[in-house]
Amino acid sequence: MNSGSSSLKYKFIDMTNENVICNGLIEKINVGDAKFSYCTFKGLSVNKHLYDIDSHYKAIEYILNTLLDEKIGVIKSIEEVTAIGHRIVHGGKYFKKHVLITSDVIKKIESLISLAPLHNEANLMGLKACEKLFGSSVPQVAVFDTSYYSSLPPEAYMYPIPYEYYKNYDIRKYGFHGTSHQFVAERYCEITGQDISKLKIISCHLGNGSSITAIKNGKAIDTSMGLTPLDGIMMGTRSGSIDPSVIFYLAENGILSVPEIKNMLNNNSGLKGISGISSDDREVLKAAESAGNKRAALAHSIMVHQITKFIGGYIATMNGCSSIIFTGGIGENQWIHRQKICENFSYINLKIDKNINKFTIKGKESRISSEDSGVDVYVIPTNEELAIARKTVNAILELD
Amino acid sequence: MNSGSSSLKYKFIDMTNENVICNGLIEKINVGDAKFSYCTFKGLSVNKHLYDIDSHYKAIEYILNTLLDEKIGVIKSIEEVTAIGHRIVHGGKYFKKHVLITSDVIKKIESLISLAPLHNEANLMGLKACEKLFGSSVPQVAVFDTSYYSSLPPEAYMYPIPYEYYKNYDIRKYGFHGTSHQFVAERYCEITGQDISKLKIISCHLGNGSSITAIKNGKAIDTSMGLTPLDGIMMGTRSGSIDPSVIFYLAENGILSVPEIKNMLNNNSGLKGISGISSDDREVLKAAESAGNKRAALAHSIMVHQITKFIGGYIATMNGCSSIIFTGGIGENQWIHRQKICENFSYINLKIDKNINKFTIKGKESRISSEDSGVDVYVIPTNEELAIARKTVNAILELD
Repeated sequence: MNSGSSSLKYKFIDMTNENVICNGLIEKINVGDAKFSYCTFKGLSVNKHLYDIDSHYKAIEYILNTLLDEKIGVIKSIEEVTAIGHRIVHGGKYFKKHVLITSDVIKKIESLISLAPLHNEANLMGLKACEKLFGSSVPQVAVFDTSYYSSLPPEAYMYPIPYEYYKNYDIRKYGFHGTSHQFVAERYCEITGQDISKLKIISCHLGNGSSITAIKNGKAIDTSMGLTPLDGIMMGTRSGSIDPSVIFYLAENGILSVPEIKNMLNNNSGLKGISGISSDDREVLKAAESAGNKRAALAHSIMVHQITKFIGGYIATMNGCSSIIFTGGIGENQWIHRQKICENFSYINLKIDKNINKFTIKGKESRISSEDSGVDVYVIPTNEELAIARKTVNAILELD
Repeated sequence: MNSGSSSLKYKFIDMTNENVICNGLIEKINVGDAKFSYCTFKGLSVNKHLYDIDSHYKAIEYILNTLLDEKIGVIKSIEEVTAIGHRIVHGGKYFKKHVLITSDVIKKIESLISLAPLHNEANLMGLKACEKLFGSSVPQVAVFDTSYYSSLPPEAYMYPIPYEYYKNYDIRKYGFHGTSHQFVAERYCEITGQDISKLKIISCHLGNGSSITAIKNGKAIDTSMGLTPLDGIMMGTRSGSIDPSVIFYLAENGILSVPEIKNMLNNNSGLKGISGISSDDREVLKAAESAGNKRAALAHSIMVHQITKFIGGYIATMNGCSSIIFTGGIGENQWIHRQKICENFSYINLKIDKNINKFTIKGKESRISSEDSGVDVYVIPTNEELAIARKTVNAILELD
């Protein structure tokens, strides 16, 4: 279960074989005109508007009714739901791994709302609604975006600001997309039959939100997102790291207020801000390629430049690199960016197979480096829901 | 002439042979208890307190009188001063190279005060005082920290925020320490007899303020400082880049006001903020090594980690690296940091000669990589004053 502030995404998975029984999405909760998409393993598909969904509770109630529905449902009774795994974005300093949800866990997630206001609050709404609707006999598990980063060393997670802000207010780099980075790194080892404890992997999750993680000997040792998912490389609407003085300059000169700047950096920057066209990379690419739009092309130049720098930085941090993985909507589909990025790394003998790269799109999993490349480059579609489901199973088995 | 907000540093150089005839420093202008240090080529040295120096004008008047002084002076008449070169920190979008000072130039430098409030205002005070005291017959030249970066490509200088802030308010990466980076890069080519147009150089100016610049084929193509000298790697008191959300978090939770955050990031962060000891790397090193102070050691781990990442990022940006140069107070003296940084780059066959490195301190110029290293690493003491003097001569000769 992945609850956003106005959306709810879910997959119902048979964990005996990891088959997806059904999955669904309710968008625009609260607006009064919610959109429901749903499909089942058997090929049944539903798209419709829901006019009475004005809360996460009602959305999850609708999802439960759909699961049980005589025509389009997939279960006969609520008991067939063994467990619910929730994506929780911010685990702060408390959660170094996934955990069974208790009232204490809820209190801690609540205490972290100020670190991830939009995300944790929405995650909690989904969690609480599930508790009410499914009852206490269905165990719920919280899987945190941040917990994969409990292995970061202090030189990576400390911001060089007065130490007291770390000590008193927990201000540090937490990192996000951990579930995704871990999933693709482990999948890479599975495909290639390699031992993760001997590899230096750089995982690039590039989508509407983007982050890059350095994984050395099986442990995350640095990542581009920070205290919040705003840090790091430019994204669909987020700026990533900028000179902090930009904020002071805009505020002091009365150009924008501080809340306006926050909104601008989170919602109107990145691809959208530079291109002026869209936060969707596909739209930006279309404008750059078909219409010769210069700002769209510039947005991509900046993105490729920043990704190149982060990958290069992590190669240095690990003193080398065995493998680079691309995942996420952009990472899995935009072959032209992958090609441009990879072409910067011939100094470590990385050789991309342009032809394979070009055809590795739309959910395909493939090596895109050539056989004689000094670095393995792979495209691996992420599957955060499956990763969450696996951790959920783990948490329950540990309980037994 | 290098005018800071409360200090004034100068060198009087005979440009026929580049000998320093005398140099001096007035500190704590405005406080009513200024400190004057002065020495001449002939070995004469003066240190004293000045109780009547309360402005840049009075400080420069004092400098002029010292130059002319019968006992400690070095000239007989003001005519012996052929020209004055001023360090100007921010040249904004106007100045792509050094320039003879005119009223139009002054207006433009004034218009850039909001981009570098502390620096440009102080630079201007020195410049205007010189005009009054030396008269219009002594040409004055402005040499900008930023102008070396006029070669940056847009993907390096654009922040991924809405394009209008670049277009309407000139918000972009400008870069600083340009005079120093250019000086050491050119000096490196002079020493080694190489053609700069064929090299990929990374220049690390590490001091109280620190920046790293990538110089490809003789042109700066990226640098760590940005709109202001706050951006990039951690410094003595500056944080460098952080998640912009840190600012919003501190402000929204009432921990600090926005002006307090600005002050904190500029004056109480970096080595000082993490160590809690000092902004002076020598003090921090002493605490880490002699007293086993953990926060002092942490400050260094973070610094080495960040420098490593920036160097690695620029290696990727240039698709390789021929040469790394260290300069500035830390770069020229703190051999232990240089060793730790260089040890991260064995993946590009960089080999440091630990013994040479250890003894390359206190103004020594030397290669510190071993003869069979795949990358040349040099320590080259910077000399911004000489670089400014050379540009000043150039500006005047172009006029003739």
